Formats: sequence, structure tokens, C-alpha cells
Amino acid sequence: MENSEELKLLGLWVSPTGARVEWALGLKGIKDYVYVEEDVMNNKSPLLLRLNPVHKKVPVLVHNGKPITESIVIVEYIDETWKNYPLLPQDPYEKARIRSFVAFGDKLFVDSYTAMLSQGKEKEKLVKSIIEEFEKIEEEIKGRKFFGGESIGFLDIALGWISFWLPVWEEVGSMKIFDPVKYPGTALWVENFLRQPVINEKLPPKDKAVKYFQERRAILTST
Amino acid sequence: MENSEELKLLGLWVSPTGARVEWALGLKGIKDYVYVEEDVMNNKSPLLLRLNPVHKKVPVLVHNGKPITESIVIVEYIDETWKNYPLLPQDPYEKARIRSFVAFGDKLFVDSYTAMLSQGKEKEKLVKSIIEEFEKIEEEIKGRKFFGGESIGFLDIALGWISFWLPVWEEVGSMKIFDPVKYPGTALWVENFLRQPVINEKLPPKDKAVKYFQERRAILTST
Repeated sequence: MENSEELKLLGLWVSPTGARVEWALGLKGIKDYVYVEEDVMNNKSPLLLRLNPVHKKVPVLVHNGKPITESIVIVEYIDETWKNYPLLPQDPYEKARIRSFVAFGDKLFVDSYTAMLSQGKEKEKLVKSIIEEFEKIEEEIKGRKFFGGESIGFLDIALGWISFWLPVWEEVGSMKIFDPVKYPGTALWVENFLRQPVINEKLPPKDKAVKYFQERRAILTST
Repeated sequence: MENSEELKLLGLWVSPTGARVEWALGLKGIKDYVYVEEDVMNNKSPLLLRLNPVHKKVPVLVHNGKPITESIVIVEYIDETWKNYPLLPQDPYEKARIRSFVAFGDKLFVDSYTAMLSQGKEKEKLVKSIIEEFEKIEEEIKGRKFFGGESIGFLDIALGWISFWLPVWEEVGSMKIFDPVKYPGTALWVENFLRQPVINEKLPPKDKAVKYFQERRAILTST
């Protein structure tokens, strides 16, 4: 495969950012890569610390020996390196609009994860603000099948955590964020998105994911 | 000027992210734009809320009527739209390396601002971690005049807050983060960076900036 003589992905089976990279590779039709599972919670490998000394996080994509870090940066690198099935539009303005929305989505992503770990007033406040912010996602998807239009694009990958991880985090954190009646466009997108084999074949079983985040929550909130 | 018949920037005189956009415009030699000062703290204008309904923040660059938000996204838009004086390299791997470092720098930026607003144990912990993280900035700049090499590039713009705002925040938050003896490469970069007219002509007087953040700190920590 062109450009991919040595392609390695350091990931974690339950990581929503790792899934972004696997989805991007899948959409590009790249299957010929080595996947290395990292035990991020208990035992970071010397390989991970050498390849990602700045962030010390997965995912890391290693292309011909060169490591790339940060999931969104990796997805953009993949898009620039393999030109089939473009994820980002060419037009600078359309690109900027999507990048800006990705930044917005990432804040919501961090807030939702934080809400799962929070309690009391802090959680209440966070959940309320996240619910309000979802209005903007609904406005963006309204009238489209995917955020990328007729097919999955960059923004679908960036917001993909909403389809699988948000329900998991809602269950683990005993909170209700997403209301399909209030946000029918987003609910339909979740359905369409999860129906794509290239997306759902990379998802772990939900019960295992719930168990993982329950354990993580217990550890992180006990200190 | 090509592509810039209608260029407007919504900013705030003391905003470090607004400075990024002004620096990028300055480096591209673009002077023919309308600057609109926004009173973000007390009174967001209907113009700002209309142009940036998602983030409700400055800076916003409006190019031929189209708004672009998020400072890093705006700088990348400027770089893609005006091709003279390239800020990002063309090579996808080099570009990814810089984008990933920008994400790292932005975390440090938010942490430094948060540290200024914090107190007690929380502040102590944050300051300690920021000081450790500065090691990576020192390693990146060592042996180079600018992060971009011989001239100011994308990463210099993204990390520009270190040159002016960090000392302001240190003063306002009564904290010591940056040690020029420990980090001589970074200290030299600050000097070189601030010496460039295109950079320093966009900076406000330091005493006024200190006063602004003192007031902001008083308001934000009183609730």
C-alpha cells in the first residue's frame, strides 16, 4: 500500500480518540497496519513514552518510523497523506468552519467526560450547560444525513464519541444528557453513523465499555 | 489587496488569542482591515453574537462577510488564503508535528490562566505541573532562533502568549512559573520574539494589562 510500508497504531480498545484514527484509516480503506494495545491506565509502555514524550497519551500513529500524536491531528495527517475519500473540504473557509466546530465539539467531549466524574452541584451545572450546547449540534446536522453531507466526513469522525461513548458515560455517571425527542436530527445521525460497518466494526461491546469507565471513575474519584 | 476587499477583526485589546490573529495579519503584510473592539467582559455586541453564536468569543475574523472563529483556526485560514510568507510548512508530517505541539501549548496556556485565578493547593499543583511542562518548550526551541526556524512561524504565533501574557499573569497571580536561568533557550526566544516590530506593535502597555487581569481576577474569584 502506497505510503504505508510501516504503519503502526498505538491505541486502547475503549478510547474514543483512538476510534477516530481507526475510523479515518477504515474510511481510507487502509487495513494493513499493526495495532498495538496500550494499557494506558496501569502500565504505559516504554514505546509509548518514547514515541509520545510530550502528551504520553494514545492514540499515536507511527508512519515509517515517525510518530504523530493528538487524534484530530492524526486524522488530518491521514487525510493529507492518503488522498482517496477526502475527509476535509478543499475550500479554506469550509475547512475553517469545520475546524472551529471540531474545537467546539472537543470542549463538549471533555465536559461530558468530566460530568461523568463529577458530583453534586458541579455535575448539575455541567450537565445543564452540555444539554444547552447540544442545540448547536442539532442545528448543524438538521437536514443532512452526515455532518459531511451525504457521506461521513471530518466532523462526523470528530463528533463520533456522541454516538457510542456519550450513552456509556451517561450510564456510568447516572446522568441524562442526550434527549432524542428534543434533538431528532442528532438522534437520526447517531443511527446512520452507527449503521456504517466501517464505524461499528471498531466499537467495543457496550457492557465492557461501561465496566471500564465504571472502574476508571472509581479510581479517579477515590483520590 | 487580493482577497481582502472586506476584512474585519472583532477583538479585545488585551486578548492573547486576538494578538495571534493580528500577528498573522501583520506577518502577511495585511494592514487594510477594520478592527472592532469588543467589550467581552461587560457587554457582548449583537454583532459578535450574530457572527459567533457557537463560541460567543473574540477573536472573530470576517472575510467578505463570512465569519471565522477560534484563533488557531483563523491563523490557519489566513495562511491558506494569503500564500506570501507561509506560516505552516507544506510537508504533512512537519505540519502534524506543529499542530500537535500547538495543542500541547494551548493546554499550558489554559493551565497558566487558570493558575492565576486559583488559590492554595490547587494553584500549587498547577504551577508545579506547568513548570515541568516548560521543559518540553525549552527542548523544542533549543538551538533555533524561532520555533519556525530563522523566522517567525505558526508555532511562534501559537506560543506567543508566553512572551507577554505569562509575565502579566505571574504578576497578577503572585506566582513564579518561568525561570530564564533554567530555560535559557526560551528566554532568548522571548527576547527575539518581542524585538520584532510586527509582534510588539500589537501589544498593549504592560501596566494596563496587569490592571485588566487584576480586575478580571477579582470578578471571577468573588463568585
